[in-house]
Amino acid sequence: MNTQHNTTHDCVRPPVHEKKELCDLDYSQDPPRILSNYLVHAPKPFNAEPHLPLLVNAGLITPTDVFFKRNHGPIPDIRLEDHQVYIGVQTLNESQPVEWKALNMHDIMTRWPKATITASLQCAGNRREGLAQLKEVKGVIWKAGTISNAVWSGPRLCDILKDIAGVPEDLHNEMIRNYHVSFEADDHVKEDACYGSSIPLRKAMDPLGDVIIAYEMNGQPLTRDHGFPLRVIVPGYIGARSVKFLQKILVQPQESTSFFQRRDYKILPPWIDSSNVDTAWDTTVSLGEMNVQCVICTPMEKEVILCPKPVTVKGYAISGGGRAIYRVELSVDGGKTWEPVDKIEQTPDKISGMYWAWALWEKKVPKILTTSELVVRAYDSSGNMQPEFPIWNYRGVMNNAWFRVNNVTQMPQHNM
Amino acid sequence: MNTQHNTTHDCVRPPVHEKKELCDLDYSQDPPRILSNYLVHAPKPFNAEPHLPLLVNAGLITPTDVFFKRNHGPIPDIRLEDHQVYIGVQTLNESQPVEWKALNMHDIMTRWPKATITASLQCAGNRREGLAQLKEVKGVIWKAGTISNAVWSGPRLCDILKDIAGVPEDLHNEMIRNYHVSFEADDHVKEDACYGSSIPLRKAMDPLGDVIIAYEMNGQPLTRDHGFPLRVIVPGYIGARSVKFLQKILVQPQESTSFFQRRDYKILPPWIDSSNVDTAWDTTVSLGEMNVQCVICTPMEKEVILCPKPVTVKGYAISGGGRAIYRVELSVDGGKTWEPVDKIEQTPDKISGMYWAWALWEKKVPKILTTSELVVRAYDSSGNMQPEFPIWNYRGVMNNAWFRVNNVTQMPQHNM
Repeated sequence: MNTQHNTTHDCVRPPVHEKKELCDLDYSQDPPRILSNYLVHAPKPFNAEPHLPLLVNAGLITPTDVFFKRNHGPIPDIRLEDHQVYIGVQTLNESQPVEWKALNMHDIMTRWPKATITASLQCAGNRREGLAQLKEVKGVIWKAGTISNAVWSGPRLCDILKDIAGVPEDLHNEMIRNYHVSFEADDHVKEDACYGSSIPLRKAMDPLGDVIIAYEMNGQPLTRDHGFPLRVIVPGYIGARSVKFLQKILVQPQESTSFFQRRDYKILPPWIDSSNVDTAWDTTVSLGEMNVQCVICTPMEKEVILCPKPVTVKGYAISGGGRAIYRVELSVDGGKTWEPVDKIEQTPDKISGMYWAWALWEKKVPKILTTSELVVRAYDSSGNMQPEFPIWNYRGVMNNAWFRVNNVTQMPQHNM
Repeated sequence: MNTQHNTTHDCVRPPVHEKKELCDLDYSQDPPRILSNYLVHAPKPFNAEPHLPLLVNAGLITPTDVFFKRNHGPIPDIRLEDHQVYIGVQTLNESQPVEWKALNMHDIMTRWPKATITASLQCAGNRREGLAQLKEVKGVIWKAGTISNAVWSGPRLCDILKDIAGVPEDLHNEMIRNYHVSFEADDHVKEDACYGSSIPLRKAMDPLGDVIIAYEMNGQPLTRDHGFPLRVIVPGYIGARSVKFLQKILVQPQESTSFFQRRDYKILPPWIDSSNVDTAWDTTVSLGEMNVQCVICTPMEKEVILCPKPVTVKGYAISGGGRAIYRVELSVDGGKTWEPVDKIEQTPDKISGMYWAWALWEKKVPKILTTSELVVRAYDSSGNMQPEFPIWNYRGVMNNAWFRVNNVTQMPQHNM
């Protein structure tokens, strides 16, 4: 392993990414992919979500080859032994240059205790399809499969920042209250020089926050599609903050200036569309924690079920910020009457006790008529519920309206 | 000040509360009260909420004589110099007796740094009226004024627990993940031997959690109606957890066994009513964090406004868990079209950066017609929004449906 650059090296200079033209993005080195588990929305950049029944039937821990894939550009071709992560602090005095320090993968994998957490990642654009049906939205028209749950391992970001960046551990420190940690990826994307994003320093340093720099997913090195060799995992937050191909960590007084922090993942007000969107970015808050969400994964809309009654309806539910799902209700009459589901499986994190992982739930329904409208809604531990109807927003993010499934037909096999 | 009992005293035995009959509750020592600021729902126990326009016009910090008053029994007549707080830890081995330690008010006020936080308290039953209109509910039929915001001072509970109860500071400790801190009041109530409640130990020890044991409210000793001499303040949680007249703190492996933790503040499912409620308590989660809430305080339903246009509509908004309010929208046509409010005032806690205090907002509306239906809704920083319609629950708690105001009449003064 290359140990040429390490934390004692003087005058480390992280590489500077130059913005490329769209036509210069080279997808020829993307990894080979097995597509059968996925609904592929776009090949370049590769964006694909698992089929919903497969997702829920895969169980609480989503196997890596079922986990959704969300990219903004070509997958960088990184060699483990060459990879460096640059860490610095930008002070309020902007004329003072950042003193960067570099870590190689050996440092990352050995210098701090390895933490293991189970956390779901959900793209803020999950269920964008439901908003696109109301009015045109910008973004990949995701269905409800842009969420998966995995086991992640790596050092805690708070340990690294304390040691390498000198960030104080005291959570009552003013810096922790006001600063942000920005992340940059070692990639090229169409919207910016590289993918970037940030989280409040408070979240990074929170001992109950569980932010890690993962080099393992489900017990194996990260796959290239999921961020090899290193990915931030920000549990309880929208997936966009869990930056893949991590190359730079900068503690700074403001949010990341990246496109993806300032011009993207925001719930714009409903009166903002493509005609006036530039007026709204700077006054709209960047997304962090997820809202409460619940989806029926099986049966699917228009599905024909070749078996006799009863039918087991299954799905997932999750909330942000480590909040638990404490109730899931199913209606088979379009929301007129409701019943609790039979079972909700959700486990708090073994260490922090926070609920970073989704809940899987199921309910036996005696018979589903073609005229039945299945509707599901969840409550989280802070008493928030999903809204009945979606409210359109231009970026089509955070749609968490009651999830509806129609036109399911049950048919005994001999009728085929 | 009496220092006879202190933490070095052996074999401290906290007083044991015996349940009294309803007819034995003595309200003769309740403090004198000025009633003009309040809508009084019940005199014994005294339950009163401020009039909504007064509440919002009183500003970000609610003066103590406008702050809502929520009681379950007579106000205990406690002398500062006699008051003791008993602190203990109950281990998993229940045969091992709790080693209680006692603190007097001098200890409380001098042994630890005095922390000051600004936090709103909201009764979980705020806006119960909206659920009572759907079906009978149990509880005081509060309107929307059972919320107020004050400045609280006292030691941090985490400091006390570390020093006095030996609770480890390390948030990754198993005890912190699984235990609870229960609180008991030095009072008598009709439902139980005394008022009691609990919070997860995780919340109590969270350096960003800001739980304090307050002896001051708005810079003055607590008033008797607001918990003199000592009150727990659990910011971001329903008011029921901020136990007044604090007398006992017990760290224990389970939630408080108090009526108010196990048989009260819970969102029961909509199919649970007085006929079957006993089947649901143990399977329904106790409330902790508040959900997102927004209310129009002025004008009020059926108000006649004696002034020309425009009218300034004002109200409050808040969310639980320290989440910020990032958008408030007003509709003057019953929810068909929406506009942002002109101003939202909300300040994060100076130390932790969490949003424990409500937001006040306002918007100038050109003219309010009697046919206008004013509706308001808010979004919090985790992208949760209020539901359009309330869902009934037997205890009438956590109603956060869109808030509606009808039948406001504008009338020039010369018409009177």
